Amino acid sequence: MKIVLIGAGNVGHHLGRKLYEVGEEIIQVFSRNRNKAKRLATLVDATATTSLNRIYKQADVYILAVHDDAIHDIANKLAELGCGHQLVVHTSGATPLTVFEETGLKRYGIFYPLQTFSISKEPVFKDIPFCIDASDKKDIKLLMNLASRLSNNVRYINDEQRAMIHVAAVFVNNFTNHFFHIAQALLKEKNISLDILKPLIRETVDKIHLNSPDEMQTGPAIRGDEKTIKRHLTLLKNKAEYRKVYELVTHSIQKIKS
Amino acid sequence: MKIVLIGAGNVGHHLGRKLYEVGEEIIQVFSRNRNKAKRLATLVDATATTSLNRIYKQADVYILAVHDDAIHDIANKLAELGCGHQLVVHTSGATPLTVFEETGLKRYGIFYPLQTFSISKEPVFKDIPFCIDASDKKDIKLLMNLASRLSNNVRYINDEQRAMIHVAAVFVNNFTNHFFHIAQALLKEKNISLDILKPLIRETVDKIHLNSPDEMQTGPAIRGDEKTIKRHLTLLKNKAEYRKVYELVTHSIQKIKS
Repeated sequence: MKIVLIGAGNVGHHLGRKLYEVGEEIIQVFSRNRNKAKRLATLVDATATTSLNRIYKQADVYILAVHDDAIHDIANKLAELGCGHQLVVHTSGATPLTVFEETGLKRYGIFYPLQTFSISKEPVFKDIPFCIDASDKKDIKLLMNLASRLSNNVRYINDEQRAMIHVAAVFVNNFTNHFFHIAQALLKEKNISLDILKPLIRETVDKIHLNSPDEMQTGPAIRGDEKTIKRHLTLLKNKAEYRKVYELVTHSIQKIKS
Repeated sequence: MKIVLIGAGNVGHHLGRKLYEVGEEIIQVFSRNRNKAKRLATLVDATATTSLNRIYKQADVYILAVHDDAIHDIANKLAELGCGHQLVVHTSGATPLTVFEETGLKRYGIFYPLQTFSISKEPVFKDIPFCIDASDKKDIKLLMNLASRLSNNVRYINDEQRAMIHVAAVFVNNFTNHFFHIAQALLKEKNISLDILKPLIRETVDKIHLNSPDEMQTGPAIRGDEKTIKRHLTLLKNKAEYRKVYELVTHSIQKIKS
């Protein structure tokens, strides 16, 4: 398939390279940032452009790996430019399929790899859940086939499901990472590196592969160990921000249990 | 060394078996629960007792792997029973060394394996940080030597440091696990299993081995993406508990950044 990749950020970068690796033909890479467009284009034997007006018109799929806010406008522009009958998809978990309505596009879909990407770390594509949707059944099939070349974990997911997945992902990724950050800040005060908690963090995650998280909960909140909770709150007394978080999450654990 | 193990819960169970495995001599296991005492005693070729009055008096170390609230009373009892000159240690992260003051014990310490243990999962001891302290320098050395037989990650950690480690551990273990639970509950509403988030969870943890968590933060909160945050809050509108947590942690991420 001839693919035009719009966006050369973390998602575009890794997705483009993987598609190329499995033998798909990336014919063009667009990014407003010339260096990024060129860097990725070079890696996948494509041409690079920084102008949407120069976009190739006859691709089989246009993959929009851009900021959520840019999806609607770029889709509009592609329709204007004469790509209205080509398949256009976005890679966003937070953006519904309806973003493409009234853009003049006839065929559109979603190609959402549920993973956090960073430029410095090579993702393991075969495990990444690809959440697929499209305006047309044939295009759902086409996108599922394409995703299956990258991953063993391809699913049809509708807007409602994907919206919930996205908010759940914020809890397990952004919020969890924030707690790693808080832990790091607390330890730093006593000249201890976050390294000391890494085996515990690893085990916390390993455990959910064996049992449901609600069955695996431990600690002072679920035990109702008010003495330890009080001691922790005293330790956090000059850290209003962390203390508030500690209190609320402790309360939430106790509430969910009852 | 002759060791008496007091407590046959998750920590006692795994610690006892590992000490036995590396060749230490567990001579006796105490638990108020006869079945637990017997089960562990059988595994480590020790005798079992449910009565503190029958505790062996000449052990080199008494390891108290019991509830935090029980430590003081058991220590007292051991002193009364004539173990006042033996080394008595506890395995608790939340309990200071001072718990042993005024118990009549002369030699006491802390032997705290910083890990979450469950009966059904075999821990990898060599990576577990052992946090050691004792009332006496010679006993610190003795305990560090003993811990080194179990783990490559043995440290001297004082009360202040250990208290902070323990509250940080609550953030990365209990609180993180709670977020896995919330994610699971949210997904369940749309008939989706938590499995779909496991590759993301894995990556979230893998990343902190490469970079500091504050440098790896992504998502709507740190981006200041109010549109997505608003959409998430709308999704959570009938879930007051989760919504409160979402709002507070989002705010906390934004505050820590600024």
